[in-house]
Amino acid sequence: MSTDPADHLPLYAQLEQALITRIADRSLSPGSRLPSEDSLVQEYAVSRTTVRAAIQSLIQRGLVEIRRGKGTFVTLPKLTQELTELTGFVEDMEALGRKATAKVLDQRVVPSSELVARHLALPQGSPVVRIQRVRLADGHPLSFDETYLPKELGRKITTNNLEANPIFSLLEEKYNTPLIEAEYRLEASCADSTASRALGIEIGSPIFLIERTSYSIGHRPVDYEKLHYRGDRIRFVTRLARRKPAVQKGRK
Amino acid sequence: MSTDPADHLPLYAQLEQALITRIADRSLSPGSRLPSEDSLVQEYAVSRTTVRAAIQSLIQRGLVEIRRGKGTFVTLPKLTQELTELTGFVEDMEALGRKATAKVLDQRVVPSSELVARHLALPQGSPVVRIQRVRLADGHPLSFDETYLPKELGRKITTNNLEANPIFSLLEEKYNTPLIEAEYRLEASCADSTASRALGIEIGSPIFLIERTSYSIGHRPVDYEKLHYRGDRIRFVTRLARRKPAVQKGRK
Repeated sequence: MSTDPADHLPLYAQLEQALITRIADRSLSPGSRLPSEDSLVQEYAVSRTTVRAAIQSLIQRGLVEIRRGKGTFVTLPKLTQELTELTGFVEDMEALGRKATAKVLDQRVVPSSELVARHLALPQGSPVVRIQRVRLADGHPLSFDETYLPKELGRKITTNNLEANPIFSLLEEKYNTPLIEAEYRLEASCADSTASRALGIEIGSPIFLIERTSYSIGHRPVDYEKLHYRGDRIRFVTRLARRKPAVQKGRK
Repeated sequence: MSTDPADHLPLYAQLEQALITRIADRSLSPGSRLPSEDSLVQEYAVSRTTVRAAIQSLIQRGLVEIRRGKGTFVTLPKLTQELTELTGFVEDMEALGRKATAKVLDQRVVPSSELVARHLALPQGSPVVRIQRVRLADGHPLSFDETYLPKELGRKITTNNLEANPIFSLLEEKYNTPLIEAEYRLEASCADSTASRALGIEIGSPIFLIERTSYSIGHRPVDYEKLHYRGDRIRFVTRLARRKPAVQKGRK
């Protein structure tokens, strides 16, 4: 490609098109770093202003993203995840053909907040185990998870290597705690400083927040989680049926 | 309340507490405008800096919000909406005891984008009817909706007053188009300039985006929508069951 001033497009748009072509043919692959401003200035013989305008436009298209303190990277395609049954992160990633890994940031006993206590049906302030992890898909941070477990159960769970063992598997296969169902609460939110650090994104970036309370036999809550998914990396899909009203009411 | 300098809290925190009390006892009611900086300075005999620090802290707590060019308002509580069957906005608001209204911003025939064409099973570029509306709950903007309908059906629908008639009701009751089910795609996103103008929020504010394709008999797609919900106003709730794997595979 040459950025030909005689072309009908402005220079920045020509450069943008050239970079889009390289992203599309994967010579700039998903997750890779964009060449530096300096090297783009040199390679395409354009001004720094032109390079910045092209990159700004790529950001607006969602094709590249700035990672704080790290540079500009080609974005990864959005994962499309089914939201139709209670599944854990490792199961979800396996269904998408992605490799799931985890990094444990912290695990400790904390007094339960009003919210955590309510979801785990405990008195407020009673001790619970909190586990903070980053969950990665093919090595890229996808979700910052906070898991709250009743103290006894949590103490047992945290004797295991939680970077290697999914908590759902431990509950079901090791600690005789079958999962029956879960309540999901879904919100669009913004990354706070903890989530932004954990996920390597700017503060204020969109977060798809799932609060999930999982129940064992007898509707006993055993696991309350706050799952902070990167909004730019995931969408959820479900299908819902129409239910006809039993009695057709007259229009007011 | 008096802001007593002898109190152990800093002045701004005392003012904040006083305002929280007024919000809690609803003498400052949800959706109402906060008194101006000037009147707070006068009423509580504190500096403008103190007033600003108190308001900043209330914003961080999510108790008040700035509306662009309009002032600072007491935030409304988040609606908690079921996501368990295919329902329209008016039905959803009725279930929550809220009054649904609508404001039509635009309705016109447009050529279908690749995305719209795919969801409505039409050739790309073929004409579709696009309807843009703001949906309000108790008079407060909650969602900016873009509805795309196949041209013939859309032309019939747009002969009606769409501020008074839900499209789902028109489809089902007037145009013999029963709705059977829908595919929902859920994302966390940020308000662009169109959505921010329509909803009266800042560009970049969190948006809970629902893309919904509704199907009639014979899995015929009849309605594709992009529903931009204010992220600060709504959460969705659903319950999912655990499905045991049919065959327990050995652990790798």
